[in-house]
Amino acid sequence: MAAKILSGKDFADAINAETRVEIERFREVHGRSPALTVVRVGNDPASDVYVNKKVKTAGELGMISHHHHVADTITTDELLQLIASLNDNPQVDGILVQLPLPKGIDERVVLESIDAKKDVDGFHPVNAGNLWLGHETLVPCTPAGVIEILKRAGIEIAGREAVIVGRSNIVGKPMAALLLTENATVTLAHSRTNDLASVTRRADILVAAVGRAAFITTEHIKEGAVVIDVGINRLEDNSLLSDVFSDDEIEKRAAAINSRGFTLIGDVNPRDAAEKASHFTPVPGGVGLLTVAMLMKNTVTAAKLRIQNL
Amino acid sequence: MAAKILSGKDFADAINAETRVEIERFREVHGRSPALTVVRVGNDPASDVYVNKKVKTAGELGMISHHHHVADTITTDELLQLIASLNDNPQVDGILVQLPLPKGIDERVVLESIDAKKDVDGFHPVNAGNLWLGHETLVPCTPAGVIEILKRAGIEIAGREAVIVGRSNIVGKPMAALLLTENATVTLAHSRTNDLASVTRRADILVAAVGRAAFITTEHIKEGAVVIDVGINRLEDNSLLSDVFSDDEIEKRAAAINSRGFTLIGDVNPRDAAEKASHFTPVPGGVGLLTVAMLMKNTVTAAKLRIQNL
Repeated sequence: MAAKILSGKDFADAINAETRVEIERFREVHGRSPALTVVRVGNDPASDVYVNKKVKTAGELGMISHHHHVADTITTDELLQLIASLNDNPQVDGILVQLPLPKGIDERVVLESIDAKKDVDGFHPVNAGNLWLGHETLVPCTPAGVIEILKRAGIEIAGREAVIVGRSNIVGKPMAALLLTENATVTLAHSRTNDLASVTRRADILVAAVGRAAFITTEHIKEGAVVIDVGINRLEDNSLLSDVFSDDEIEKRAAAINSRGFTLIGDVNPRDAAEKASHFTPVPGGVGLLTVAMLMKNTVTAAKLRIQNL
Repeated sequence: MAAKILSGKDFADAINAETRVEIERFREVHGRSPALTVVRVGNDPASDVYVNKKVKTAGELGMISHHHHVADTITTDELLQLIASLNDNPQVDGILVQLPLPKGIDERVVLESIDAKKDVDGFHPVNAGNLWLGHETLVPCTPAGVIEILKRAGIEIAGREAVIVGRSNIVGKPMAALLLTENATVTLAHSRTNDLASVTRRADILVAAVGRAAFITTEHIKEGAVVIDVGINRLEDNSLLSDVFSDDEIEKRAAAINSRGFTLIGDVNPRDAAEKASHFTPVPGGVGLLTVAMLMKNTVTAAKLRIQNL
């Protein structure tokens, strides 16, 4: 059996097309576009790529976006003052503080200082709480994107066994809440789980979010499962390529390692998933592409909810 | 194999003895006892019993307790004003609004109006969120009590399979968060779960919180599992007794049904649990007795956290 590949680009394009229409409607009704502000502290190069992608996509969809780039010498107090001014600004609908923050800045205090109604990353305790309590809220973008993939691919969730490997606050736990809301029987597995393969082999829907390259292999996958790979890892060793990629992929990946020192790989061995799963999301080109699309959608949701409650 | 019965009274007594010491220490340091205010709306007879039990236990442990009993003609706005005054009162450490509220009062708005730092029921979204994010917080009393039972009984949780049946905001979901924090592999099952018995039979630790009398039977229980019964249901039919109780219990239960019209039974068939489980909590006399003890403990925790942060 050859698994169907769930391409993130197709779903992201579809969501962005819908968001563009929502933004246009919002502007017609309220006389301005929804507005996203991204706060970036310091010069982490990966953050540079992510922030630019977010700001660029916002612009392409007709949203207003601002990018506050501040030096890593900023103190927690100064950052809190910046966020307070954004909280108070009625022209700002969404605030995103790009992680990771430099050492010495209290990440928890910073994230909790964002007005929960503008917290388009969905990391604020109020939003995490409302998610679990079943209330409308701003949901973390990556797990929200996974639900979009499953629904848009026509995969039934209700009554099926979902197993999530990894229990991060950003992916694993909110993923559990969302799959539960969709009436899956949900298991959270993690580094302390005994005999992980016997747990993951129960999964009709398997979500891998552990941050370990090709960690999920054939022994972990039930025949015909839907496998969602949330991991994005760097593979720097040519010798591993033949264990994880198909023949036509190996050459391309080897070229990437030779030219820039690494190739990206998920938490799932893609060759094993292709053989055993019914559907799987590739890395790159899978779940990651949904994250920005869901951020855009969240910003529009935040703008609408705020205006409703003014 | 005959299961060991985990008596709630023993654990509740032990926790209350510790709380009494904490209250005494708090008074020595801060010159006053921790204070709990219970708000009761209307005349639900079950609430009467529960509220009296809470107020009485608080007094016995040396805590200050107040009972605001207001008529069911109170409006949501008036109730919000009462809660606002309790939020502002520095002499009040814990606020508990007894549920259910009369129809016409917006329960969600009322619960969200309680200062999260005084929310000793742990129902506020901020507290639900902090629980899932792994931060110190006020935790719902019933699932917190289950963890106390497991730990005090010396039952290992880390690495074991825990299955929770029922996904309420008050029990099932926070129970999942707490068992996950203790490093169990956690599954949330519910009314939409397919082949429930095959899911629950995986459980080393099985928590039943569905509100259906004797719903969990021999087919659901793995030999040697720890079975925690959170349900409290009324059994009014004599003819069912022989299916669920041991011979020496039947006569006692029949007498209860004859005299007051019902006997209490949990979500687990107690005869089946006694035969297959390694440990189980009885109903009555099990988890229910921990709930008030955990409320007392939460109130002391709330008092300490507030004073630390003043």
